[in-house]
Amino acid sequence: MINKLIAKIQKTKAPIVVGLDPMLSYVPKHVQQKAFAEYGETLEGAAEAIWQFNKEIIDKTYDLIPAVKPQIAMYEQFGVEGLLAYKKTVEYCKSKDLIVIGDVKRGDIGSTSAAYAVGHLGKVQVGSKSYAGFDEDFATVNPYLGSDGVKPFIDVCKEENKGLFILVKTSNPSSGEFQDQLIEGRPLYELVGEKVAQWGEEHCGDSYSYIGAVVGATYPEQGKVLRKIMPRSYILVPGYGAQGGRGKDLVHFFNEDGLGAIVNSSRGIIAAYRQEAYARFGEEHFGEASRAAVEDMIADIQGALTQAL
Amino acid sequence: MINKLIAKIQKTKAPIVVGLDPMLSYVPKHVQQKAFAEYGETLEGAAEAIWQFNKEIIDKTYDLIPAVKPQIAMYEQFGVEGLLAYKKTVEYCKSKDLIVIGDVKRGDIGSTSAAYAVGHLGKVQVGSKSYAGFDEDFATVNPYLGSDGVKPFIDVCKEENKGLFILVKTSNPSSGEFQDQLIEGRPLYELVGEKVAQWGEEHCGDSYSYIGAVVGATYPEQGKVLRKIMPRSYILVPGYGAQGGRGKDLVHFFNEDGLGAIVNSSRGIIAAYRQEAYARFGEEHFGEASRAAVEDMIADIQGALTQAL
Repeated sequence: MINKLIAKIQKTKAPIVVGLDPMLSYVPKHVQQKAFAEYGETLEGAAEAIWQFNKEIIDKTYDLIPAVKPQIAMYEQFGVEGLLAYKKTVEYCKSKDLIVIGDVKRGDIGSTSAAYAVGHLGKVQVGSKSYAGFDEDFATVNPYLGSDGVKPFIDVCKEENKGLFILVKTSNPSSGEFQDQLIEGRPLYELVGEKVAQWGEEHCGDSYSYIGAVVGATYPEQGKVLRKIMPRSYILVPGYGAQGGRGKDLVHFFNEDGLGAIVNSSRGIIAAYRQEAYARFGEEHFGEASRAAVEDMIADIQGALTQAL
Repeated sequence: MINKLIAKIQKTKAPIVVGLDPMLSYVPKHVQQKAFAEYGETLEGAAEAIWQFNKEIIDKTYDLIPAVKPQIAMYEQFGVEGLLAYKKTVEYCKSKDLIVIGDVKRGDIGSTSAAYAVGHLGKVQVGSKSYAGFDEDFATVNPYLGSDGVKPFIDVCKEENKGLFILVKTSNPSSGEFQDQLIEGRPLYELVGEKVAQWGEEHCGDSYSYIGAVVGATYPEQGKVLRKIMPRSYILVPGYGAQGGRGKDLVHFFNEDGLGAIVNSSRGIIAAYRQEAYARFGEEHFGEASRAAVEDMIADIQGALTQAL
């Protein structure tokens, strides 16, 4: 799957991922109204609204991009109905040959991590049959519980030819509270990065490992250091756009081969129609606004990479 | 809700919580067969089997215990169908007046943490209406992302009179890999414990805070230190029984008032019928075996507390 991700990045020339994090407030009024007319102002209605919103954005952008990253929390807030919309979104993206990074940030101990891994990346055994629960291609994982919390995910990835992105240095303002604490003079995130590199040795593709890392665009200096600590790990970089990151700040997340990083934008793409820069499309044509925002993001990052490499 | 938890612990004299973590392999054959006869060997069939298994254990133990802790991963592995069984389990436990600790170990940044908080502890707005997605009473939260990942959970807890248990020192063998790293001579888990105490000051009940901590029974010495660092935080203690903890090892997780800790057992209770000590009940009467295991666990912990305090 990491080979496929890289091939798709090379084909689209777009080291980016669209974050499908649909707040109901991002969904244009006409989409909400149609869903509520059919299902009422219910959890089903909300789930239908975000699904239709996602579908339009996917339809308008899938040919430009290699991957999407649905944030499961935005679906889970609507309970089981929301999770049905998540599953539908994953399936639809896969039918469009997009790679799906499930932003689930799960992580637990032993058999419990194994259950999450099975549910999101593998297949669960039921009597003599087996079934995939959510079936994403990659999942994000929280490392706080250590190796025996991460290993069950790696085991399932090996079986299924899938991958992980481990939280190393997150994009939020208070990520430093624990992640930056110095251990023998080095921040915790470097230790986690070293572990990611080690874990990755267990499960390698042709040029990169299946075990990647999450490092926020908002911390470019840390990205530079972590790039060297984990030379064969793909870095998933959230925080572009709305959180402040720009193409020129991100070149050090990439290796000299122009690979090694994939930059996520969520709000900046899916709610593009609400930005002044894309207001010309109008709320009705929110999918076109997202397409234009994707094109601009690709140009920004490719431009910065061409200058730098 | 922390006041209610304490009142229920005092009434039942049982500072324990039953972990509803139903692996399909724990479910007796006759329960599986009945579910598969109705729904086939499908995800629905598996979900029905674990729901019926849970229901029997709840029916046979609810009068002895204050709280349950369903581990959502064990349901999530069966996809949306499994999560329906999770929701049904939460609702049924609440109908029996049990306090439900959702062991979800969620944690993300800002608005994403808010979405998880809303989905598990709060209500989500859909047009002019609002709905509770999963509606547990407490949730477990991963602290790796720092304060701005935890605060949105606390905000929802304040509104809803609910609470959290933050992962501080987990029960698994490799928990020390990051959690024990020394920062200016003190392990990371102590720093996290201090934060839990601070966060707890924002949302206090009568004698304890709504913001508790998870500290594994397998680390009694660390429990002793953390007890002092977080004097008003309830400690949720996993790792009793199957993972090796015993009543006498756990007394230092409690304060001198005999309160301040609640000990979880999952496999040791729900799969008691498979242990030699409870084999006399037979697989058919697995609920009775669980009841006997609960009674033994309460006696073990109460005995140790009576001796120590």
